[in-house]
Amino acid sequence: MATTGRLNESILLDTLMNYLVSMARTVESAMNRALDAIVSLDNPRSAALPGEVFLLEPRINEMEIVIDEHAIRLLRQGSFPEDELRLIVAALKLNNDLERIGDLAVNLAERVVSLREMPGAQMPEELAPMASAVRAMVSQSLGALIFRNVEMATTVLESDDVVDQYRDRIFEAQLRRMTKEPDAVSPGLQFVLATRHLERIADHATNIAEDIIFWVRGLDVRHGRLGGLRPEQAVPITTAEANITQNSQASHPNVTPAGNTDIVIFT
Amino acid sequence: MATTGRLNESILLDTLMNYLVSMARTVESAMNRALDAIVSLDNPRSAALPGEVFLLEPRINEMEIVIDEHAIRLLRQGSFPEDELRLIVAALKLNNDLERIGDLAVNLAERVVSLREMPGAQMPEELAPMASAVRAMVSQSLGALIFRNVEMATTVLESDDVVDQYRDRIFEAQLRRMTKEPDAVSPGLQFVLATRHLERIADHATNIAEDIIFWVRGLDVRHGRLGGLRPEQAVPITTAEANITQNSQASHPNVTPAGNTDIVIFT
Repeated sequence: MATTGRLNESILLDTLMNYLVSMARTVESAMNRALDAIVSLDNPRSAALPGEVFLLEPRINEMEIVIDEHAIRLLRQGSFPEDELRLIVAALKLNNDLERIGDLAVNLAERVVSLREMPGAQMPEELAPMASAVRAMVSQSLGALIFRNVEMATTVLESDDVVDQYRDRIFEAQLRRMTKEPDAVSPGLQFVLATRHLERIADHATNIAEDIIFWVRGLDVRHGRLGGLRPEQAVPITTAEANITQNSQASHPNVTPAGNTDIVIFT
Repeated sequence: MATTGRLNESILLDTLMNYLVSMARTVESAMNRALDAIVSLDNPRSAALPGEVFLLEPRINEMEIVIDEHAIRLLRQGSFPEDELRLIVAALKLNNDLERIGDLAVNLAERVVSLREMPGAQMPEELAPMASAVRAMVSQSLGALIFRNVEMATTVLESDDVVDQYRDRIFEAQLRRMTKEPDAVSPGLQFVLATRHLERIADHATNIAEDIIFWVRGLDVRHGRLGGLRPEQAVPITTAEANITQNSQASHPNVTPAGNTDIVIFT
């Protein structure tokens, strides 16, 4: 009976993974349509893209609920080996980040709809390279998910700053233009909001990469923990844990070297 | 031995709940400081508030990690009664939404720092009432968490539209002013971004309310499922489930009346 139970659990885990990959592909497809739409505002051929993004949203929302329900059904079955438990917890988190990328694709598509009604709108020069950087981050984070690949995930963590720099440069350029030309105010606001959506998509790609590192390696790398992790370094878990404690101590001198943060933080 | 195990689990669950409440109070305190700061830009007494928000952020980040680790430690112990399992899963989600409200408080504080360097900045008339509406939503959602109160959670779900309307009206007013007065462009951009941060705080308060309904009632009310749930209605779960299926069918005609969405959605 115990063997049958494990077999059953193994099938349910495979199903969870398949659901996640299917959700990831749908979200990526919605996001790519939104990115194509924002960088080709003048192209009549891309006029249908925002509508396609809107149509994908309810499907993504339903997928999110099904994945959550499936993960909870798995947890109900009882105790799991450590790596399988981490997969289930990571699935709950990945699911959430994927759904939010889907939401942000909708937000981007809304910006496109507004901008297409402003014929004089001049696209910021750096918007296309920013969109490419975001597209690459999402593609790598989903590749890391499909191939359980920590190196790909680590590459994503390193790209986040580039996207923030694009956001700041586009903001400054739009601010200058809007101050000089009243006609640039309306499209400028839409472009500034669009760069915020792009930045947040990149943030969620970063979260996905962090969740994959947690799942595969058992390490929590959020909030700058393990800032020094690089793909070429095969960090043994013991060293990594030492780094975590060091990092925590930098911002919280009261954290004990043994990592007993609970008592210190919750006072 | 089994009794000792249950006692131990019960203590660990109480600890999880205490951690969450402590995190919620810290996040609310950061957010209230950020809201006070944005509605009192001209007041020299509130100049220190953004710095206080920045100081709380690393503490909130550490709390998030400790709560996640504690929830995973609990899941490792094995099988739980249904309501306790739902609490642990809800804790993982609540934790995430709380941390993001903390991030958004930091974003708001950044807007305040920029705006305080623009002495002519004229605050949008509706910003203070919008901030009050957001403050009330967060306060109610955290009240719902502390008192496990579904009625309070349902009130939060009903307030989200009001915040979106404030956002749209402030956007229109700022757009008009920025088009007429070049000096209004720089502060106007900051105010538009600030309303987006406020809107997203309200979204996370809504998520928190939905998670509490899931935890206490076992119902998933995300994405407009159970649109008709009202505090005065004591919805028995069977009726609620019927509504879920109806709602799903509205957007997905292929979903079977028995609610077997898995096969239909993941194709």
